[in-house]
Amino acid sequence: MPRSWSSDLPTSPDQVVFSRTHSLIILFLYPDLFLVNTAQCLSGPEIGLVLIPGIDEEVAKLLKLKAQIGGDEGKHQFTLKTAKGTRDYNPKQMAIRERVFNTIIRCFKRHGAETIDTPVFELKETLTGKYGEDSKLIYDLKDQGGELLSLRYDLTVPFARYLAMNKITNIKRYHIAKVYRRDNPAMTRGRYREFYQCDFDIAGQYDPMIPDAECLKIVHEILSELELGDFRIKVNDRRILDGMFAVCGVPDDKFRTICSTVDKLDKMSWEDVKSEMVNEKGLSEEAADQIGQYVSMQGGMDLAERLLQDAKMSQSKQACAGLTDMKQLFSYLQLFQVTDKVVFDLSLARGLDYYTGVIYEAILTQNCPVNVSATQNGVDEKAEEGVSVGSVAGGGRYDGLVGMFDPKGRKVPCVGVSIGIERVFSIMEQKAEASARKVRTTETQVMVASAQKNLLNERLRLTAELWNAGIKTEVMYKKNPKLLSQLQHCEDSGIPLVAILGEQELKDGVVKLRTVHSREEVDVSRAELAEEIKKRTSDV
Amino acid sequence: MPRSWSSDLPTSPDQVVFSRTHSLIILFLYPDLFLVNTAQCLSGPEIGLVLIPGIDEEVAKLLKLKAQIGGDEGKHQFTLKTAKGTRDYNPKQMAIRERVFNTIIRCFKRHGAETIDTPVFELKETLTGKYGEDSKLIYDLKDQGGELLSLRYDLTVPFARYLAMNKITNIKRYHIAKVYRRDNPAMTRGRYREFYQCDFDIAGQYDPMIPDAECLKIVHEILSELELGDFRIKVNDRRILDGMFAVCGVPDDKFRTICSTVDKLDKMSWEDVKSEMVNEKGLSEEAADQIGQYVSMQGGMDLAERLLQDAKMSQSKQACAGLTDMKQLFSYLQLFQVTDKVVFDLSLARGLDYYTGVIYEAILTQNCPVNVSATQNGVDEKAEEGVSVGSVAGGGRYDGLVGMFDPKGRKVPCVGVSIGIERVFSIMEQKAEASARKVRTTETQVMVASAQKNLLNERLRLTAELWNAGIKTEVMYKKNPKLLSQLQHCEDSGIPLVAILGEQELKDGVVKLRTVHSREEVDVSRAELAEEIKKRTSDV
Repeated sequence: MPRSWSSDLPTSPDQVVFSRTHSLIILFLYPDLFLVNTAQCLSGPEIGLVLIPGIDEEVAKLLKLKAQIGGDEGKHQFTLKTAKGTRDYNPKQMAIRERVFNTIIRCFKRHGAETIDTPVFELKETLTGKYGEDSKLIYDLKDQGGELLSLRYDLTVPFARYLAMNKITNIKRYHIAKVYRRDNPAMTRGRYREFYQCDFDIAGQYDPMIPDAECLKIVHEILSELELGDFRIKVNDRRILDGMFAVCGVPDDKFRTICSTVDKLDKMSWEDVKSEMVNEKGLSEEAADQIGQYVSMQGGMDLAERLLQDAKMSQSKQACAGLTDMKQLFSYLQLFQVTDKVVFDLSLARGLDYYTGVIYEAILTQNCPVNVSATQNGVDEKAEEGVSVGSVAGGGRYDGLVGMFDPKGRKVPCVGVSIGIERVFSIMEQKAEASARKVRTTETQVMVASAQKNLLNERLRLTAELWNAGIKTEVMYKKNPKLLSQLQHCEDSGIPLVAILGEQELKDGVVKLRTVHSREEVDVSRAELAEEIKKRTSDV
Repeated sequence: MPRSWSSDLPTSPDQVVFSRTHSLIILFLYPDLFLVNTAQCLSGPEIGLVLIPGIDEEVAKLLKLKAQIGGDEGKHQFTLKTAKGTRDYNPKQMAIRERVFNTIIRCFKRHGAETIDTPVFELKETLTGKYGEDSKLIYDLKDQGGELLSLRYDLTVPFARYLAMNKITNIKRYHIAKVYRRDNPAMTRGRYREFYQCDFDIAGQYDPMIPDAECLKIVHEILSELELGDFRIKVNDRRILDGMFAVCGVPDDKFRTICSTVDKLDKMSWEDVKSEMVNEKGLSEEAADQIGQYVSMQGGMDLAERLLQDAKMSQSKQACAGLTDMKQLFSYLQLFQVTDKVVFDLSLARGLDYYTGVIYEAILTQNCPVNVSATQNGVDEKAEEGVSVGSVAGGGRYDGLVGMFDPKGRKVPCVGVSIGIERVFSIMEQKAEASARKVRTTETQVMVASAQKNLLNERLRLTAELWNAGIKTEVMYKKNPKLLSQLQHCEDSGIPLVAILGEQELKDGVVKLRTVHSREEVDVSRAELAEEIKKRTSDV
């Protein structure tokens, strides 16, 4: 499908796309010549769209001329950008990403988790019927004469497919990988079309609420260790929601759609939510008001106990089962000493269809500094941003998903949590920007340098010695670099030590070891150099 | 494009794909009934393709019957498999992968490399014109009404795009990520359509051969540390090859195609290569024979010196430049003490078009144990496998690629190496299989257990204490698990210690710490437990 010329007008020289029509190429290469030759044909901004009779001969002539002048063979022929909604990670971003991942993986391993990996694409049918309306956001691969494939939309469905395919009934695993959603990236800032998910799940038939409590403990540990500021973990249960809907008089076939509306309470006022229930979804005003009373409730184990005594709520078997489990969950959370951050919140609904029991979501409660520079979409964007910005983890129990893949429908109960890692990255990046401390992108301990000429071979020899001793070492790829530029490189990239070689040092069998920040220098015997460097950089 | 019925016949019950045509469904569900009712219409193997009049009523009846019998609601509706040419990594494979990656990343970091990441897909035009004939193997995404996208084919082209886009002229970076090739995975075993690449590259204008030598030093370090057995690193230079072709009388326009033929010398005999040159590519027999003399040569710095004196070779400026640099390269390799493994080999050509200088390839020289169980493709596969099995790393200098992306054609000289990590994985997996030692998939240090009933809360409390002290701890998600099953889990997953709680221990403020392999037990005070566990598992 060819795009219209006007929408593709280059906005910067780097984005110039050369059309295959020579008449247009030449317009960019020799605008002056072109204007002189064809001025009578042109009319203002439509300059590029005018077809000029006889121009092709001119073009051929000019191209020949150009070829003789030379120097443009390598000329750019591409749109120099990444795909819409995606980005490169530069070394600084990668250094931050690595630190965040390390914290999270350390926590997952502390809890005895294994890890697996699945392919980036799945058979299209594997993803079909799992994501409801969001299915339109799935990236499909082109039919190139084989299976129909789609990029994974999350890590949960591939996990369920993996369990069913390998007949695994017990596993505690984490999976950190990229997922893909053809969302409109400009509308929801901080949201990309390619982004990381960071999932921890426990599959298996166990006594109620023990693995569920461990998932919440993990969220608590990770958010505490990442030092993102204060947070709350809201919990609820799909059975409590469904029971509540039943006793409030919501018809069975409206449970899921009313649930989606309740899910908007973190972004909309109760009045707007009620109006959507009544006016759009056709719920009676009375039922909506009853729901309104419940969803304003927050508490802990006490609230679960109170609701078990509630005249209406206690009529629903489902609600009672959920509330009994909620009490049990809080008793385990007390043992884990995390109840300070956990709130039983009846307004929490969560979007996904596949949850069957406990659900939870963690939010940052402090005003975290969010990048508000991109305001091209104005109001919409702000509204989107406003309230839900703080959500950094979420999950729940999904006991039916694996059974959807099993040939015999055998169920494998699962509970899991997903860390909203992209949001964590951007908070960490902003913290790094704000902090005076520089983010190092390498771990280099020492630079081998020289103040004198003709010592390249000696520098390389010493560098290899240090590499072989396990020291992270850099050396400049120049025959005779200036000492100043060698020291400057250390300053720039945070290398703490310089090992300086000179004729005298070589004679004496020593190396001058310089501490970059203090400029202190001391002679160290060559035999002891590696040990000395290790000692001085043990805290790096 | 619908596939023919016969090629999609299910080979196992798990792979049954239910067609949407009821007549066909019913054929699988009730073949007997079907045959009885419609026997007169059927004719041998075309059974499924015959449209039977009146069958729809029968189908409806039978489906109703089936619904009454029940039990099939959860019935599998999917092809339970990963996409062709892809695979899941299970926890054991991931544990091996993690160890290999750690070794490689440690080496890259020792050499002061940063890391970057790029999106899994690029604009299609970014990849266009970079891979020659192999472009047909590129995975395209479906045109869903936006940009035309393709999955990345390697990490080098995205790296060049990244440098040009960000105007970076100096960087030493590694990048470990998956790439995608729509190859025929059945034909070349151990080759997947989704696989990891593991690249290290140095970009920048430096004095000749210093970064090139570092790349070879890195290959040497990594292959040594991975303990894959003995290896050789072959080096050559595109300028030496081109000079050789020129002095042997190969016409200019045949350089690249003759180069591709030479590249087959690791899989074909000289006779076959010569025959391809003469009979398929139309080279004169005389020229081919002259090439034959050169490509049999192997050596070190001495060979470079000899060829610089060679009457024919010395006539080519290009060859002389390449040979002079080769001497320089070997002098640096001597300083790095890696010449024992490096061979200057004139038969090394390497496939990719973009190399402009030094090229290299590392091969394993021992008979490494290769999985030869999959023999469905017989001869072809064996031939493919036979000689090239040992190649585990390769790379070279490509000074022109970044310029292809730069709007002004500015060149950024680059040299890099790619570790053939999938081959390394399979060797490591086979080594793990062969070894008596079990591969651990978790790092758990201790299991909190109990021999008595009703101690779940106490177990959870102690578990949380240990998690908070940074100890990798597991606990069973059962109210009253048997001690034996708790110990069995430790045996199975290699957990070295068990912290056993009982009424008596709780009273005494101690925990019974059991060493799994020796069955030794000792009481440890609760306050000292974490320290004691750390001490005992410091070598794990």
